Amino acid sequence: MSHLEFMQKAIACARSIEGRTSPRPPVGAVLVRENQVIGRGATSPPYGPHAEIHALREAETTAAVGADLYTTLEPCCITVHTPPCTAAIIAAGIKRVIIGSLDPNPQVSGRGVAQLREAGIEVITTIAEPETAALIRPFATYITQGRPYVTAKWAMTLDGKLASHTGDASWISGSAARTWVHQLRDRVDAIMIGVGTAHADDPRLTIRLTEEQRVHPRTQRPNHLRIVVSSRGELNAQLQLFQKQLAPGTCVIVSETSAPDQRERLRERGIQVIEVPADQTGRVDLMAALHILGQREIMHLLLEGGSSLLGSAFEHKLIDHVAAFVAPKLIGGEGAPSPIGGAGLAIMQHAHRLQQVSFQTVAEDLLIEGEMSYTAEENNRGN
Amino acid sequence: MSHLEFMQKAIACARSIEGRTSPRPPVGAVLVRENQVIGRGATSPPYGPHAEIHALREAETTAAVGADLYTTLEPCCITVHTPPCTAAIIAAGIKRVIIGSLDPNPQVSGRGVAQLREAGIEVITTIAEPETAALIRPFATYITQGRPYVTAKWAMTLDGKLASHTGDASWISGSAARTWVHQLRDRVDAIMIGVGTAHADDPRLTIRLTEEQRVHPRTQRPNHLRIVVSSRGELNAQLQLFQKQLAPGTCVIVSETSAPDQRERLRERGIQVIEVPADQTGRVDLMAALHILGQREIMHLLLEGGSSLLGSAFEHKLIDHVAAFVAPKLIGGEGAPSPIGGAGLAIMQHAHRLQQVSFQTVAEDLLIEGEMSYTAEENNRGN
Repeated sequence: MSHLEFMQKAIACARSIEGRTSPRPPVGAVLVRENQVIGRGATSPPYGPHAEIHALREAETTAAVGADLYTTLEPCCITVHTPPCTAAIIAAGIKRVIIGSLDPNPQVSGRGVAQLREAGIEVITTIAEPETAALIRPFATYITQGRPYVTAKWAMTLDGKLASHTGDASWISGSAARTWVHQLRDRVDAIMIGVGTAHADDPRLTIRLTEEQRVHPRTQRPNHLRIVVSSRGELNAQLQLFQKQLAPGTCVIVSETSAPDQRERLRERGIQVIEVPADQTGRVDLMAALHILGQREIMHLLLEGGSSLLGSAFEHKLIDHVAAFVAPKLIGGEGAPSPIGGAGLAIMQHAHRLQQVSFQTVAEDLLIEGEMSYTAEENNRGN
Repeated sequence: MSHLEFMQKAIACARSIEGRTSPRPPVGAVLVRENQVIGRGATSPPYGPHAEIHALREAETTAAVGADLYTTLEPCCITVHTPPCTAAIIAAGIKRVIIGSLDPNPQVSGRGVAQLREAGIEVITTIAEPETAALIRPFATYITQGRPYVTAKWAMTLDGKLASHTGDASWISGSAARTWVHQLRDRVDAIMIGVGTAHADDPRLTIRLTEEQRVHPRTQRPNHLRIVVSSRGELNAQLQLFQKQLAPGTCVIVSETSAPDQRERLRERGIQVIEVPADQTGRVDLMAALHILGQREIMHLLLEGGSSLLGSAFEHKLIDHVAAFVAPKLIGGEGAPSPIGGAGLAIMQHAHRLQQVSFQTVAEDLLIEGEMSYTAEENNRGN
């Protein structure tokens, strides 16, 4: 088997723990000797042993001597919560380390590789990027910017509507697409919606998957946070998110200028309330909110709309990844909301282009994904 | 070679004359003897010989005796402008006729087959549908409903915008997608836009293709009609469509209630003006307009927007085919237009679904096509 094939096995290990390692990256590792996998590992839930350690432990101590270690991310070389993996790798007598991506933290990137090489270990970088890089994007944003990586998800009709002109959105995409969204929810730390969506759709923001649909073992799932952004904190107490079962995992982000009695009313129900500064328009400063969530170790945030909150995130260049479903149906309506509201850009040439775009069908719907790039659109200039 | 493979050759013949045969369908035929193609044919421009006749003429008279004839459409059995093809096929001594689709005209469908069988010819139906059916869709709509088949085309951003909030739409899709649209224009009889698009984009609505991009020989192209719908007929005389070179092929559809001096002003420039009844809102009754265009032998109409005209066509269930480009870029803006305006439907379950949906990438953009179905959305009920 090739480096790429063994790295795919390490990637599969990493995928099995996505959304369960924050604020640490999900990493996978396999230990290979004479073309056979003799150990596998994935990052433990927060602050537990790293993937490489698990892979080493799975193999017999003597078998690791002279073996190859494949890891999706450069082994750590510093003690944060656990001893450095580089030390364990050197001690185990590993002959060769094959690395997917380098550490995105500029403070340590390349230092793990250097330590291994100094110890006489052959190091091969980088294998299977962009897949290994995709795995650590949330961590990379978190570690370099101190805020969660933001995936914006929406489903729209082929005529670009998030809902009908009356606000009805049940359902735009089919059941397979909705299952995909629950699987996405299962990979993030928090789900955020705006006050409009909270009132229009009254969602639960829970993860509802059958055992067959589940990518990850249920037991490993830390509770994800459900967040409603409401600058004034004026929310209907009857919302499903505020009922006894869901309230403890629900958080409302309000502006500091909101009425104190509104905040009190929410807290009395057991709901967390986070107060953040208001921007010039009196609305929640979304960048400030994301930094507070970063401090709470939210590494990957899923933004599920609506139009106004997505518009605000877009305006502040906070959308990192887009997952957009297009349903092949038409509803029409000048007054129907489209995915990204707000002020918007005036010039089409200034539109922000997605990078690493992928298309796939999910039953009858189409899923378009990509990374946001906030440089101006240059591609079509002069045409 | 199989029936399907020979039929593909007949389909290729038919494709080479799409948009050049109205009000007759584009048909292709190949004559096959001992597994060799000995004749090919495609419908001549209006009222000339049909495909089958061309294919028979291409072969030696004696070679046709006992040969197989593949034709994308059931041979005609009546004299409209040319003698019936069935008679020529019988006279030529053809042994077997393999047919793509039956005649969509319910008055004659199946009668060509019956005549051939009565003459002792073996007839095989139907091969390579839905491709052969797709070729004759415009004709089928025209012959059964007396109006052009309507293809609605648009390009939108991934956040569902036809333009920025200021109306800027240059360009949403890339140059390859724009070439595709010119190839589409080359397959239709007329291109229609609304007054808003005429003023915002000032398009020429011409077919601009290099020789390499051209699917059809340039010489066979009848001039296509360029149509602006303007209920009140109030149009800027400086528009490119109204200048000397383009004016003779340009037509403005106005409401009967428009001011006579506006219509006179347009006619003085050499522009055709068609007056149609107004609907309840005082705007052009689009169904009435399409019937007038049908009388003028416009068999395939391309609707290029904008939002308001598409909304009106959607409301009256006049969109037959959708070709929508999605560009992987975001522009935002609550006030930016989305593809289909108008009143729109209130309930998402009532959205109209596309059938026979196809997805393809055209360079960096995605093209979604499908046939409109105006039955209510049932697929997701109960989810």
